[in-house]
Amino acid sequence: MPVKAEIVSVGTELLLGHMVNTDAAIVARELAALGFDLTNTQVVGDNPARLRAALELALSRADVIVTTGGLGPTQDDLTKETVASLAGLPLEENAECAGRLRVWFGDRAMSSNQRKQAFFPKGSIILQNHAGTAPGCIIPMPQNRFVILLPGPPHELTPMLEREARPFLQSLSQASIHSTIIRTFGIGEGAAAALLGELLSGANPTAATYASDAEMFVKVTAKAESAEKAALLAAPLVAAIRERLGDVAYGIDVASLESVVVSRLVATGKTIATAESCTGGLLAKRITDQPGASAIFGLGLVTYANKAKEKLLAVPAALIEAHGAVSREVASAMAENVRKLNGADYGIGISGIAGPDGGTAEKPVGLVYIALATDLATEVRVMRPFGISPARSWVRQRAASHALDMVRRHLAGLPVVVDAF
Amino acid sequence: MPVKAEIVSVGTELLLGHMVNTDAAIVARELAALGFDLTNTQVVGDNPARLRAALELALSRADVIVTTGGLGPTQDDLTKETVASLAGLPLEENAECAGRLRVWFGDRAMSSNQRKQAFFPKGSIILQNHAGTAPGCIIPMPQNRFVILLPGPPHELTPMLEREARPFLQSLSQASIHSTIIRTFGIGEGAAAALLGELLSGANPTAATYASDAEMFVKVTAKAESAEKAALLAAPLVAAIRERLGDVAYGIDVASLESVVVSRLVATGKTIATAESCTGGLLAKRITDQPGASAIFGLGLVTYANKAKEKLLAVPAALIEAHGAVSREVASAMAENVRKLNGADYGIGISGIAGPDGGTAEKPVGLVYIALATDLATEVRVMRPFGISPARSWVRQRAASHALDMVRRHLAGLPVVVDAF
Repeated sequence: MPVKAEIVSVGTELLLGHMVNTDAAIVARELAALGFDLTNTQVVGDNPARLRAALELALSRADVIVTTGGLGPTQDDLTKETVASLAGLPLEENAECAGRLRVWFGDRAMSSNQRKQAFFPKGSIILQNHAGTAPGCIIPMPQNRFVILLPGPPHELTPMLEREARPFLQSLSQASIHSTIIRTFGIGEGAAAALLGELLSGANPTAATYASDAEMFVKVTAKAESAEKAALLAAPLVAAIRERLGDVAYGIDVASLESVVVSRLVATGKTIATAESCTGGLLAKRITDQPGASAIFGLGLVTYANKAKEKLLAVPAALIEAHGAVSREVASAMAENVRKLNGADYGIGISGIAGPDGGTAEKPVGLVYIALATDLATEVRVMRPFGISPARSWVRQRAASHALDMVRRHLAGLPVVVDAF
Repeated sequence: MPVKAEIVSVGTELLLGHMVNTDAAIVARELAALGFDLTNTQVVGDNPARLRAALELALSRADVIVTTGGLGPTQDDLTKETVASLAGLPLEENAECAGRLRVWFGDRAMSSNQRKQAFFPKGSIILQNHAGTAPGCIIPMPQNRFVILLPGPPHELTPMLEREARPFLQSLSQASIHSTIIRTFGIGEGAAAALLGELLSGANPTAATYASDAEMFVKVTAKAESAEKAALLAAPLVAAIRERLGDVAYGIDVASLESVVVSRLVATGKTIATAESCTGGLLAKRITDQPGASAIFGLGLVTYANKAKEKLLAVPAALIEAHGAVSREVASAMAENVRKLNGADYGIGISGIAGPDGGTAEKPVGLVYIALATDLATEVRVMRPFGISPARSWVRQRAASHALDMVRRHLAGLPVVVDAF
């Protein structure tokens, strides 16, 4: 049986929505990797009564409680005091922490609130703070339970969690989790769920679908006594899912579509040049997000205006006149001409209507032509809106992803033009 | 007395740390702005028994519960079914939603899981989904309480919250909060806190500093019986902070630096063209993120390779040879030449070292030259790393922001070249 854990995040700023609770995600990932069973998380404000109630609830259903926040040097920071009171433990000054605080402050004055950072419930294990003044601690509770107090700022929490708390958590854990992500482009979450069917219904390993950034991915998670055994347990399901998804799956445990495309271009010694209209530089930006992109990318044009298409890309004015800037013909000319201009292996041309304005019945918001030119041929994928009028950011992100997917498929010897999804 | 609210976020992916709970922050901000008192939030996995327990707890202490997630077309999506069971309400098909689903799917097949998206607990108020298939709903509960179900993907949740759920929430609320954000570029959070001093210590209105995306902003929040009165209460503090910050404050309640720059360019009838090296299209992307950017932006070049700088921008090879591509001289030539090429009022040239590789002692990672050319002069701002070697994404984001800030300052008649920060 895995050990049950719960996260209690403390901070009124979280309840006001001033901050996103990244701490909970960081701690959750760590707990999952160490095989803990995290079934609930809570957020409460800087309020001792509500914090106490949240801790009591957590202690009623979990063996390890991790709190984030409320350890700092202000009057609002009450997590340590509240847990101490709940545990019936007095606060005691820790000489080493007091010494560190004095070093940190040097000649500057230290308030009583600053000094309280060196006080801990009696019997606590101290967790050093490698990036700030407030140490964390592990507080033993009745019935062999533990409350682990971590600071709120993520840049303080992360090193304390990894360097200080992890060994203790490891000693409590009785299982390891291994997770694998299969990333796709070209299928929606609903269609993927229907396609994968019974593969999504296992208990260990589990598999689940997720949507993000106009893409879909499947996460396979296995639990075993060691990370290696969990990986072995997951492998057959990962392979089955990958096979069933077919060529819409572009990578396993990869960062992104652009990271796959850039690394394959680098590996094959091919280069790419881009000519963008509605995506406005987003494709070039995503390519150059990758360190080392200069080996495969030398030139991107953002020809937003028709004049720029004519002047820099030599797209004939008559072609634009005849078909419109948003057309198969213009996207093709952009792809072919930027390819020649740069002497690249691949040329991309993107022209479409990102919205919110500029759509017509014939050419609605969300219609984008994406052309891939090589030395042999130019192929065009048409992205169409379905149902409702899509958001500008979604149209741009998805159109750039279509371009990357076309290159990926060409590099893999797959058909480049497939049904839009 | 403000109405009590609670957020229950549903999704195993949140408990595994695969995703950060941005939904909770979005909903929390909205609830705060409408004057609700949010004292707790919870996260549970895709598990009906635990979700039921979380809802029961929430209903025991709040009048309005907002759930996020679990509305989609998979077997894991059980929020609606669980709330219906808790309320003792049967699920009924909504004809309008069923019709919308059929339009969305067109000729494509629809599974039974897809169809369940048109079923709602009897008596629900339907909330349209403007960006996806799964509608939300408001479910009346005993004792005049309500559970409001919103979808998990933030791009679906946000428009549903703002357009569909807000009017209902407004009708329930009895207090209002008014928040104002003063955005800056050119000062760090620590320096700003020192500069603002006692202005940050009030109780109502409150003011606090936040860092994000290589920028810093100050949020002023006031609470009163109506939004208008809260705004009046906040106004003097907002004015005092703005005045003390001086010309690093670029806007109040604006979306971003690029939104300010694009709208001012549109308002003054000026145009801009960009030539980017290390930012790789990010500046063009940020400009064209803004709807209507085509009025002021016609051309962006991503001249990543030296050859592209020579061929498309007519930067002399000898200039690159003499000073290096990362130099004041080359950035200036890029700005001047792209300006001429496009016949624009402003030309931007950016050349630098984004890292992680390519840095030297003389030209370290994080060194970027940003040039602004007008018909009268070319000015160059130098961005230097301080302390540690900065991350690639940070260097690129900050360099693009420097370029936008230079244009903003020129448009406002302020000095363009200021100390890097």
